[in-house]
Amino acid sequence: MHRSMLLATAAAFAVATAYAASPVPATGPSDEATLEKNFRAAVNRDEMRDWLKNLASEPNHVGSPHDKANAEFILSLFKKFGWDAHIETFQVLYPTPIAETLEITGAHPWTATLQEKPIPGDTSATAKDPALPAYLAYQGDGDVTAPLVYVNYGMQDDYKTLARLGVSVKGKIVIARYGAGWRGLKPLLAQEHGAIGCIIYSDPSDDGYSTDAVYPNGPARPPQGIQRGSVADSSYFNGDPLTPDVGATADAKRLTREQSPVILKIPALPVSYADAQVLLSHMTGRVVPGGWRGRLPITYRVGPSDVPVHLMVKSDWSLKPIYDVIATLKGSTYPDQWIVRGNHHDGWVEGASDPLSGQIALIEEARILGDMVRKGWRPKRTIVYGSWDAEEPGLLGSTEWAETHAAELMQKAILYINTDNNARGFLAAGGSQDLEHFVNGVADQISDPETHVSIGQRRRAVIRVDALEPHSSDPATVARIKAEAAIAANPAKDFPIDALGSGSDYSVFLEHLGVPSLDLRFGEEGDSGGVYHSRYDTFEHHSRFVDPGFVYDGLLAETVGSAILRAADTDLPLQKPGNLADDVDRYLKEIKKLADAKREAQQTQAKMIADNVFRLADDPTKTSGPPIVLKPVPQINFSALDSAVKKLKASAKAYDEAFAKNAAHLSPEARKRLWAVMQSIDQTLAPPVGLPVGRGWYKNLIYAPGRYTGYGTKTLPGVREAVEDERWDDANKYVKITADALNAYSGRLDQAAAILNGK
Amino acid sequence: MHRSMLLATAAAFAVATAYAASPVPATGPSDEATLEKNFRAAVNRDEMRDWLKNLASEPNHVGSPHDKANAEFILSLFKKFGWDAHIETFQVLYPTPIAETLEITGAHPWTATLQEKPIPGDTSATAKDPALPAYLAYQGDGDVTAPLVYVNYGMQDDYKTLARLGVSVKGKIVIARYGAGWRGLKPLLAQEHGAIGCIIYSDPSDDGYSTDAVYPNGPARPPQGIQRGSVADSSYFNGDPLTPDVGATADAKRLTREQSPVILKIPALPVSYADAQVLLSHMTGRVVPGGWRGRLPITYRVGPSDVPVHLMVKSDWSLKPIYDVIATLKGSTYPDQWIVRGNHHDGWVEGASDPLSGQIALIEEARILGDMVRKGWRPKRTIVYGSWDAEEPGLLGSTEWAETHAAELMQKAILYINTDNNARGFLAAGGSQDLEHFVNGVADQISDPETHVSIGQRRRAVIRVDALEPHSSDPATVARIKAEAAIAANPAKDFPIDALGSGSDYSVFLEHLGVPSLDLRFGEEGDSGGVYHSRYDTFEHHSRFVDPGFVYDGLLAETVGSAILRAADTDLPLQKPGNLADDVDRYLKEIKKLADAKREAQQTQAKMIADNVFRLADDPTKTSGPPIVLKPVPQINFSALDSAVKKLKASAKAYDEAFAKNAAHLSPEARKRLWAVMQSIDQTLAPPVGLPVGRGWYKNLIYAPGRYTGYGTKTLPGVREAVEDERWDDANKYVKITADALNAYSGRLDQAAAILNGK
Repeated sequence: MHRSMLLATAAAFAVATAYAASPVPATGPSDEATLEKNFRAAVNRDEMRDWLKNLASEPNHVGSPHDKANAEFILSLFKKFGWDAHIETFQVLYPTPIAETLEITGAHPWTATLQEKPIPGDTSATAKDPALPAYLAYQGDGDVTAPLVYVNYGMQDDYKTLARLGVSVKGKIVIARYGAGWRGLKPLLAQEHGAIGCIIYSDPSDDGYSTDAVYPNGPARPPQGIQRGSVADSSYFNGDPLTPDVGATADAKRLTREQSPVILKIPALPVSYADAQVLLSHMTGRVVPGGWRGRLPITYRVGPSDVPVHLMVKSDWSLKPIYDVIATLKGSTYPDQWIVRGNHHDGWVEGASDPLSGQIALIEEARILGDMVRKGWRPKRTIVYGSWDAEEPGLLGSTEWAETHAAELMQKAILYINTDNNARGFLAAGGSQDLEHFVNGVADQISDPETHVSIGQRRRAVIRVDALEPHSSDPATVARIKAEAAIAANPAKDFPIDALGSGSDYSVFLEHLGVPSLDLRFGEEGDSGGVYHSRYDTFEHHSRFVDPGFVYDGLLAETVGSAILRAADTDLPLQKPGNLADDVDRYLKEIKKLADAKREAQQTQAKMIADNVFRLADDPTKTSGPPIVLKPVPQINFSALDSAVKKLKASAKAYDEAFAKNAAHLSPEARKRLWAVMQSIDQTLAPPVGLPVGRGWYKNLIYAPGRYTGYGTKTLPGVREAVEDERWDDANKYVKITADALNAYSGRLDQAAAILNGK
Repeated sequence: MHRSMLLATAAAFAVATAYAASPVPATGPSDEATLEKNFRAAVNRDEMRDWLKNLASEPNHVGSPHDKANAEFILSLFKKFGWDAHIETFQVLYPTPIAETLEITGAHPWTATLQEKPIPGDTSATAKDPALPAYLAYQGDGDVTAPLVYVNYGMQDDYKTLARLGVSVKGKIVIARYGAGWRGLKPLLAQEHGAIGCIIYSDPSDDGYSTDAVYPNGPARPPQGIQRGSVADSSYFNGDPLTPDVGATADAKRLTREQSPVILKIPALPVSYADAQVLLSHMTGRVVPGGWRGRLPITYRVGPSDVPVHLMVKSDWSLKPIYDVIATLKGSTYPDQWIVRGNHHDGWVEGASDPLSGQIALIEEARILGDMVRKGWRPKRTIVYGSWDAEEPGLLGSTEWAETHAAELMQKAILYINTDNNARGFLAAGGSQDLEHFVNGVADQISDPETHVSIGQRRRAVIRVDALEPHSSDPATVARIKAEAAIAANPAKDFPIDALGSGSDYSVFLEHLGVPSLDLRFGEEGDSGGVYHSRYDTFEHHSRFVDPGFVYDGLLAETVGSAILRAADTDLPLQKPGNLADDVDRYLKEIKKLADAKREAQQTQAKMIADNVFRLADDPTKTSGPPIVLKPVPQINFSALDSAVKKLKASAKAYDEAFAKNAAHLSPEARKRLWAVMQSIDQTLAPPVGLPVGRGWYKNLIYAPGRYTGYGTKTLPGVREAVEDERWDDANKYVKITADALNAYSGRLDQAAAILNGK
């Protein structure tokens, strides 16, 4: 072991020891700051470690015995902690593999290894049954044989490049590497381009030996590691594929499997990079472009392969039960205002980092809160904790519960706080950007164990350092990173939080119901990426590489607990709309630039096609095809949005100023009127109309996962995606719809400002 | 073989056949266009192939028997073709290895393979003696043992990153991969940072299996391939390290080896990637940043290695003779105006692509020109052909000859045309940008064998297509690429030619003497990169992968021959200064932007250091160091250059307009006066003062190789490099010096315009 590593490990251990359990104070604290401080001091990392060891002791995917056992164990803890708790069960479509094959037949037969081999020394990773083999939930089943084509990350731009390379995937099986966009888009786009099957692998360039030493020597993905996952087309909706918009209760009205738009039509499987190397070594045709090269020790070629590949997947498509654990502490003063907080408990295999590292924070928070109640404290608002099942296949547990209780949530929930997998490192916060100030307030109170500055201050440092060498070559992204660094450098401003797309349980709250939401985690230093969705995501891996000493898992409990206490006990609304107004202003500018750039690109391309330059620049000894012809980009009338954003900025400024001046001195009656206006203000941004092209489940007009980015965020999605997809009627329509939503939000602010100003 | 490849090969063969020898017309052509057309028709690719096979049949590095034999063979051909030819010999310092070792000692000893293994089926690459083993000319010799540190490409920015990673190379041996900058900078920068040895290897990411199938299955570098080369610090001067400024004649006054600033002080060796993998597998310490990862199947770590490495190089430092073949066709009308044309004949081993593919074009041109003379034609100007020796170790043959004949060349040479290695593909032209129009004129007359449009038109197509996805993330480079694409898309403008740095024999002409120069080649489709400076750069490799059918080697002879004829016979100066004025205007803007960006970066960093954000963003479990502190950037007074560029644009416009209107109708007397003003106009841009910091050999104030880029160009180098290196006094001084040079050039243009306008 290298000396600096030895020292560092010793330091981490010292921090962990310093964080061992402190007793909860016997009497209630006199003020909010003390309350939060005492909460943080009570976090017990030893206890969290023991829970993780237990919860991650066996595979716990949906339908597995240990998944149900974990739900029951978590329920028993909540009850022990004094919460009003129960399990809420739903019946969902959740396929499990019956049979699967990936092989090369013929003279030199070869068969892929679809189960992950044991790792010496990791007791969890040596468990055999009932681990789910290589599998992608909601792929289409099938039995196909065809040559392979390599499609890089399998994203939209990759198919444009393929066209220029003169290669079609029609009737072929594609092999795509993980990365650059959401997993589910790879088989979806393959299917849309006529492929009959899809294989996805983790390239060591992105996820393997190139990133670090492989497990068990280091945190990175070993050659036999396989990333499972869902490939449901969540661009339509999240949750159970058969029950959009409603809870998957026993008697719910269901679509048939064939009717559900989210289930793919072609078979797909994930494989390890050890197996991918065998398959990719069979490729013929053009050498791939520079950006398509992975880091296997081979020449990457686009294909087709010189052998046909046989891919077969057959699944059991029966309904399965899922188990959400729901626990409540009733509020003393505002019992009908809810603070909701969740983290899922299902994993793909043992799931120690994903999701159980966040789950043990949730449980620890519940323990301390229960203890505080036992000692006489009561939250002013009702606190609802959800330990979700079935997040992995497509956010099913949270979505079905929230759909079932939609009306009540829209009436009562003032905040949803989500966590998921966690790791050593920096605070990462995303969510409703009118909560930026709230997040900053919490983050500034919490000390980072490694640097002893606040986690907010450390976050600011990271934003600024990362901006020196932005991890993107996209000009819009670089501009955003630089702008955020300038904000982070200004102590008078709140550090930015990220706009959220999808990929964890906040989606239904934020994007379907319009409930203001936050997603909190620590990470970037401890590395759980290398075992993501593999059977090597174990207790041993987590405690050796991801968060030694459970320092940051404990810090997550400290952070979320502080936020919960603050939100549960405050007498004033949490929003600071000025931040949101600035962000929306920036998003609109981005979209205008995007439209201009697309217009210019089309004009450039048209001239290039007229001058025949693509053919002239092609190497005639290689396959080539013409570029996809761009369509002319009309002018879009943004004036309604321009006005709405201008109005939003003015209204937000007026509200923020009035709040700063008068909020502390409001009469109880005025406070009540203020809450009446502000409690559901974020829902004005998520009107019933929803997004176009079948995406009506997504109501939020500020944040949505992208139609063709999967988890990735699209801000002002009605307009932005219409521009991206060249749906000009939708663009003009959603300029108006989005402007209306912003104006409704501004209208609420104007009412609130008037109340604050005593009018 | 893939079907499209089969078809393509057949097509290439058809082209080659169509290009078989045509007879030179018996009578002199009536006009210039016919003359050039007939020249092109006379190119005989079969003959060229035979010469290549002969010239590349044995290793021909400086001092080898075959190097001398080739010079004598080339001389005999010139004589046979009717030229006045002789060999001019110089005595230069050229080290050759006596002994060398690269090994790991201790418990698990390992020794690097410093000779390249035979390739089955390639008769050239199976030759054993007297091939030069792995070697870097002008490294420092030594016998050192130390741990390794991996320094990525070993460029300046990499050492800044190393500082942040908290790793020092002091007392260590560095291992750097080829690429990103000139080879010689790697040991130089290592030495400047306290390293005691340097190993350079070709990473498969840049030069190996990742780029294409490896030889003999494809063109790319096989695992055992080694790139030799020179590491003389050519930022001071080119040519013999002991005789700067003067020819290395037998009686020249010489520096001692110790006095010469161009010879390094530490030992250095190149190795194959097969060997590098063994060395890099021993690295400990931090995983390297993303951009530092190569494509060997390992985890790249920065080091140090867990074993010491023993590196020993011992060279014979005696003087060696080199053999330039000089051949002349005397001009009929303007015998004291010379068109000089050269290509070197020495290689590192067999050197089929580099340099002999260009050498056979040169010889073929000489054959046809000789034939034309034999049939009665005479060039108006004197044509001087140079077949240079010792280019590889540092442009010695061309430099020593040009230094010896400097006065005569500055008086008589109106153009130098250089070629070097050649391949199938697109025209690449670089040089004095007031010759852009001349290059365009030639290129528009020559048909591309693959597309049947002119090579100029194809060049424009490539510039435009490449600009769609610029191969750079540097904003200044991207801006340049986009600007050039806009020019190339405008048929009313000349397509741009590149500014030249160094790396071939034009350097002494362009940068030391100020003679207008061009460097011409074809490439980008046929790939010679994979065998560059290895013993696999053979006749077999060249004719299979680089230029099947010798189609483009023949085209190079057609292109250069046409240019030579045009330049030799025109009655009017070749310059069109408007293009140069536009380029210089752009260069100045780039430098101003650079200064502004540096100023902003310093200000940002100062604030970040004050806020302690670098330490806060560091992972305390890993080694880290503070960033290199940037120094404040003062304002620079560019006004003298602003005025000079403005003047240049105006004068160039006036000249170009006068030329277009009146040049064709000048009286012989006026023409003579015009030539008196224009013949040496480019020398005004290369005044005697030269560049600062010991770089006085480089006189040209528009073009120079970079102090820290090696071959890479620095335009307006006196000012640009002063800004880059933060020599503010030099920046202000060279603003003035460069402005004076531009004003002198503009003054000549004003005189010439007056003559053209009949004044």
